[in-house]
Amino acid sequence: MILTVTLNAALDVTYTVDELRRHASNRVRAVATRAGGKGVNVARVLHTLGHDVVATGLCGGAAGAQIRDELAVAGVAADFAVVGGESRRTVTVVDGDATVLLEPGPHVTAEEFAAFQSRFAELLTDARAVVLSGSLPPGLPSDAYATLGRLAARAGVPVLLDAADDALVRGLEAAPAVVKPNAAELAGVTAVGDPVSGARELQRRGARAVVVSCGPDGLVAVDEREAWWAAPPELLPGNPTGAGDAVVAALAVGLVERRPWPERLADAVALSAAAVVAPLAGEVDLGTYQRLRSSVRVQQADVREGAPCR
Amino acid sequence: MILTVTLNAALDVTYTVDELRRHASNRVRAVATRAGGKGVNVARVLHTLGHDVVATGLCGGAAGAQIRDELAVAGVAADFAVVGGESRRTVTVVDGDATVLLEPGPHVTAEEFAAFQSRFAELLTDARAVVLSGSLPPGLPSDAYATLGRLAARAGVPVLLDAADDALVRGLEAAPAVVKPNAAELAGVTAVGDPVSGARELQRRGARAVVVSCGPDGLVAVDEREAWWAAPPELLPGNPTGAGDAVVAALAVGLVERRPWPERLADAVALSAAAVVAPLAGEVDLGTYQRLRSSVRVQQADVREGAPCR
Repeated sequence: MILTVTLNAALDVTYTVDELRRHASNRVRAVATRAGGKGVNVARVLHTLGHDVVATGLCGGAAGAQIRDELAVAGVAADFAVVGGESRRTVTVVDGDATVLLEPGPHVTAEEFAAFQSRFAELLTDARAVVLSGSLPPGLPSDAYATLGRLAARAGVPVLLDAADDALVRGLEAAPAVVKPNAAELAGVTAVGDPVSGARELQRRGARAVVVSCGPDGLVAVDEREAWWAAPPELLPGNPTGAGDAVVAALAVGLVERRPWPERLADAVALSAAAVVAPLAGEVDLGTYQRLRSSVRVQQADVREGAPCR
Repeated sequence: MILTVTLNAALDVTYTVDELRRHASNRVRAVATRAGGKGVNVARVLHTLGHDVVATGLCGGAAGAQIRDELAVAGVAADFAVVGGESRRTVTVVDGDATVLLEPGPHVTAEEFAAFQSRFAELLTDARAVVLSGSLPPGLPSDAYATLGRLAARAGVPVLLDAADDALVRGLEAAPAVVKPNAAELAGVTAVGDPVSGARELQRRGARAVVVSCGPDGLVAVDEREAWWAAPPELLPGNPTGAGDAVVAALAVGLVERRPWPERLADAVALSAAAVVAPLAGEVDLGTYQRLRSSVRVQQADVREGAPCR
């Protein structure tokens, strides 16, 4: 199975209001809640595609219980370690456009992270790939993904890392098989504007392969030798939240199946478009995915040409 | 004991943000949660004053469990009926000023309300007064407070009603001992601008006595024969949320102790000011209360003079 790790799992809450008025009282017309966090979204997509997946990570309190309950109802296998703090809720207030309120998440103790590592090591025995995805909750050291990455390396399980800032930089220390920043995250840690050069910089710091998501411009990927650019055949309107998680899901499957990079990238671009079309993060429109996957343009990227994505 | 009823109990959540930006992502710096709803706030104030009180009502789901847990930690005796729906959360986003998001609350079935009535009837055997306070959750009939009021009348327990709109109008059918609308709620159901005339109108529809809260202008009260106006000796800056619940708490004590109306009103005005000074709804500053209660001006209101409050 593919193991997804969400250390700062969330209960995603959507409030529908007529019009959000600041410094006033707003009646919420409808409330929708579901389990979230980037690793959970990746697990949802893999489950939808019919892959064997287990979602693990940390959650706690009333929101943590709701996260586990909702995943059970959705049929996504989950094995979370329970922490003493209350898992974060993300509140998205929709009045046509979206206003998002992000709680910080529970403070995780060293003992709780140590207990999680034992559980993670057990889950690794059945894993063919590990996805480490999303922000770290308060209390965890910035090298938490390097710690988990080394446990995976010891078990011979390849790692796909999707993180930002220090969690990304320190995570590179465990030499993950694939790293997937978006263009802004890559620029944030490398101070290099062009994605191929930025990806090469992440490789110098430890990454084996790097895939940079460039929104509607598609993906840029580099492995040890080559570089590619994969672009969608058409632009579809929709909600880009969760598109990056769909890319990670496709890349995890490609990693497990050791498929050639152009195939992995074509799949990832098509699945990303299928996530944009679907209304909620973690959902994909399978019809769009099937329709687009054979028509994604993948071409070798010339490093000297600079940035194929804006 | 005094029994407070909160049919639409809430988990009050406060988010502190630097500045709430619409249609953007906002990091929440701090999250605070506590049990709320008007009847719960009244119970909290009575508990702080050292009175014997039981908070009852309806709650459900994860938020309902948190409401009960938080009241247990606060030491407020609670005996809520659990419903199948999820209790509402109220999210107050504070960035200097407050933006409030109000969930509608759980849909309560006829069976659930019938089960609550049995529990309520049992609790009445030890009650010396009942406070019916706040909005009705979806699913309940607008005469829900009249139904509970008739059960209280049968048990010989006087009722204090604090409601608005249809819940107030229909609640009058059970002839509550005291009704406490604020000036806007009174104008909303009587279409009379002056509070003494409006209060007399509520008496014609069933109320025995009426106390109208007029914000910083104090209180206007009418019983079967007389009318009074009680005004605070000074204006204190602070948070008016919960001031009305403090008024209700003081009136409930006055009702139980059968104290003369001028004393009840002086206590209510002082306790209201003590709630304005305290940061959270349901809290009162006991120093302010003790300092002000002997200096509240209470005078007979001449009906012909019209409105002593704006």
